[in-house]
Amino acid sequence: MASDGFQPLDEKLLVEYLKSTPSLSAKLGNDFDKLEVKEVGDGNLNFVYIVIGPSGSLVIKQALPYIRLIGESWPMTKERAYFESSVLQEHGRLCPDHVPEVYHFDRTMCVIGMRYIEPPHVILRKGLIAGIEYPLLADHISEYMARTLFYTSLLYLTTTDHKSAVAKFCGNVELCRLTEQVVFSDPYKVSEYNRWTTPYLDADAEAVREDNILKLEVAELKSKFCERAQALLHGDLHTSSVMVTPDSTQVIDPEFGFYGPMGFDIGAFIGNLILAYFSQDGHADKGGDRNLYKKWIMKTILDTWNLFHTKFIALWDKHKDGSGEAYLPAIYNNPELQSMVKQKYMENLFHDTLGFGAAKMIRRIVGVAHVEDFESIKEASKRAECERKALNFAKTLLKERKNFHSITEVVSAIEDLNK
Amino acid sequence: MASDGFQPLDEKLLVEYLKSTPSLSAKLGNDFDKLEVKEVGDGNLNFVYIVIGPSGSLVIKQALPYIRLIGESWPMTKERAYFESSVLQEHGRLCPDHVPEVYHFDRTMCVIGMRYIEPPHVILRKGLIAGIEYPLLADHISEYMARTLFYTSLLYLTTTDHKSAVAKFCGNVELCRLTEQVVFSDPYKVSEYNRWTTPYLDADAEAVREDNILKLEVAELKSKFCERAQALLHGDLHTSSVMVTPDSTQVIDPEFGFYGPMGFDIGAFIGNLILAYFSQDGHADKGGDRNLYKKWIMKTILDTWNLFHTKFIALWDKHKDGSGEAYLPAIYNNPELQSMVKQKYMENLFHDTLGFGAAKMIRRIVGVAHVEDFESIKEASKRAECERKALNFAKTLLKERKNFHSITEVVSAIEDLNK
Ligand SMILES: Nc1ncnc2c1ncn2[C@@H]1O[C@H](COP(=O)(O)OP(=O)(O)O)[C@@H](O)[C@H]1O
Ligand SMILES: Nc1ncnc2c1ncn2[C@@H]1O[C@H](COP(=O)(O)OP(=O)(O)O)[C@@H](O)[C@H]1O
Ligand SMILES: [Mg+2]
Ligand SMILES: [Mg+2]
Ligand SMILES: [Mg+2]
Ligand SMILES: [Mg+2]
Ligand SMILES: [Mg+2]
Repeated sequence: MASDGFQPLDEKLLVEYLKSTPSLSAKLGNDFDKLEVKEVGDGNLNFVYIVIGPSGSLVIKQALPYIRLIGESWPMTKERAYFESSVLQEHGRLCPDHVPEVYHFDRTMCVIGMRYIEPPHVILRKGLIAGIEYPLLADHISEYMARTLFYTSLLYLTTTDHKSAVAKFCGNVELCRLTEQVVFSDPYKVSEYNRWTTPYLDADAEAVREDNILKLEVAELKSKFCERAQALLHGDLHTSSVMVTPDSTQVIDPEFGFYGPMGFDIGAFIGNLILAYFSQDGHADKGGDRNLYKKWIMKTILDTWNLFHTKFIALWDKHKDGSGEAYLPAIYNNPELQSMVKQKYMENLFHDTLGFGAAKMIRRIVGVAHVEDFESIKEASKRAECERKALNFAKTLLKERKNFHSITEVVSAIEDLNK
Repeated sequence: MASDGFQPLDEKLLVEYLKSTPSLSAKLGNDFDKLEVKEVGDGNLNFVYIVIGPSGSLVIKQALPYIRLIGESWPMTKERAYFESSVLQEHGRLCPDHVPEVYHFDRTMCVIGMRYIEPPHVILRKGLIAGIEYPLLADHISEYMARTLFYTSLLYLTTTDHKSAVAKFCGNVELCRLTEQVVFSDPYKVSEYNRWTTPYLDADAEAVREDNILKLEVAELKSKFCERAQALLHGDLHTSSVMVTPDSTQVIDPEFGFYGPMGFDIGAFIGNLILAYFSQDGHADKGGDRNLYKKWIMKTILDTWNLFHTKFIALWDKHKDGSGEAYLPAIYNNPELQSMVKQKYMENLFHDTLGFGAAKMIRRIVGVAHVEDFESIKEASKRAECERKALNFAKTLLKERKNFHSITEVVSAIEDLNK
């Protein structure tokens, strides 16, 4: 055990830990016979143990002081567990249907105990690769985003509550810096961490690094990411942070959470759906069996934004006379003006969403961390073809985002590339 | 004495306090015979004592837990003294020529001991009312703004240092809320605190409250003020926070300091110069003896922005390979791109400056706190005429700010109103 009381768990130590922690023991019905413990961390950063006993189950997630994927050579504060548990609890309070319950948090051990999201839940990305439709996904994720973003913004919070929450999450700076590096910096420069499907995309990767307009626009997004404390973000809302069944949608892994621009979360989700779309040709058989599925992805993108828009505005209307101080009813006091401010707010948010979404796409093709959607396409030339289409679309979206005025236009632009 | 150890000073208690505080005693050469103590707080919030002895001098500023101008009925955290002393020390480190040295800070007593800015220094606003030219003002204030804003922004700081400073100043939320209220809210609604030169400006004040476009734009500025942590602002940089002689410029009273949008400081200063300009006709004799002075004010506005621009860019160039992480040299790696990012950054900053400057003008004409520039015009009808011109210009500037592309265009627009 380290002098600070921290100790990396293994399966044996974990059982001792469970036994000595009443809130966790209780979840297992205090029944430790035939406990099944399995480390399943397929993520990049942390260790995740599924614990199943005869009388209950739970998941234990532990952060170690480095990045799991890379090893001890890339240190990373284990305090991220504190911020992850804070976001899980805050987002869980705001949207309990779509966030796993936290049973226990131990700041010294960097351990979170939470609900086991049981089978048939799978990681959404895997479902998308398998070509499975989730009819409620757009409805659920839009609910999660609308509620978590609205209720942590100045549309709902007082300045006092907002600034105190902002201050707390300034502490998660190491994770913010990691995002800055891997999303907004590395893909646009030569970096040892970058990789891409070589040699096919060599020229494409170079073109990203030499695109002045693209880099000009990325700077604007990066500055918003670093400076604009709009709402409490999940911070890493890609399709591997979502677990699904046809009936259920659960958002996990908000360790990158902080107060930032809302469009960063919405863009992460939509950008990863667009990646899934462009990867489909790599998974299709000769007969184009993924064509219907591609239409479903497009519909899901459309519905996600449109439902988010509707729900977010509904929350705004519901709380228009509430504690939020951004638009005082005594000032924004006529229907025309109320509709003008909402339109402006949502338009800016839409453009942020497209910009951040595009940036998240680009980094997954020429940056350090790739997505299984493409990685699972075995044939490199075929993979590169899919990736190039996605990359080119993302570059256009990032540069031209302010010329898009509705999600329909975005979906049309994507489908036009496929004709 | 309150249970927290706080005690409001008076002139007698102050002398005891000085005697028992070594850092202050030393500044007075430990010579307390014939000490002259004078309370001079002409500001709205705090108590300021000038202390002059035979062997030294100093100023003591104390915050009480309410707003001095209003009294105990408007409580306000005395912790503001902590933030004021923090900004004085940080800005003083960055720009010692234009910030008074802090000798002592006592968080319990909310007392700052600082350099006495001796005569012939006067409050700049009083000099502007008297029609006195300050040939170095633009040079000095642009130096102050360029250095304090640049060095506390992400152009210079690492994300880590920036976020930790942002977190600290989130604590100054009560003062931020006061600004929100008096600058961005009250003038645009019916409020018991608002006043204006009645009956002359009754319709003008009402027009402000009924101007949808204006209120739409004010919302954008308010959201930037609340959400965008760009640099450590002074927070209240009007012409009564600056003391001047022809050779010296000293910036005082940064108790509203926090991490906010740079344009808020630059706009405060320039907006107050524009107010000074529009008040001149009220101070002129029949022969229009203030015409040359008005030209000097316009030139000072022009020089302030242009010199700020030059100095800010020079700092950026000087530190382009430094610790700042906003524009990594490996990404922003060619002269064309470097010039593009700077142009975009400065253009956005210019538009913020105009917007915030205009908002600061409006609130001084129809809000709670007015400026002596106008208040000292005895004849109400004449005062109202000056104020109306300023108000109309400010409304145009706020709404049309993005159509201005240089400070010359702004100055021309002001001068055109005077033809
Ligand atoms: N509450 C949970 N229930 C079931 N499985 C989970 C749960 N939390 C995480 N997992 C599994 O563990 C994997 C890694 O978890 P994640 O929180 O994404 O860790 P990382 O931060 O390392 O990416 C997930 O992809 C998922 O398969
Ligand atoms: N360091 C100083 N040297 C000389 N005079 C000062 C100094 N600080 C404040 N004053 C005088 O006291 C007045 C009020 O100070 P200020 O800091 O503006 O207080 P407030 O926060 O109440 O506005 C100033 O207008 C100025 O005349
Ligand atoms: Mg994960
Ligand atoms: Mg994670
Ligand atoms: Mg003052
Ligand atoms: Mg100088
Ligand atoms: Mg003050």
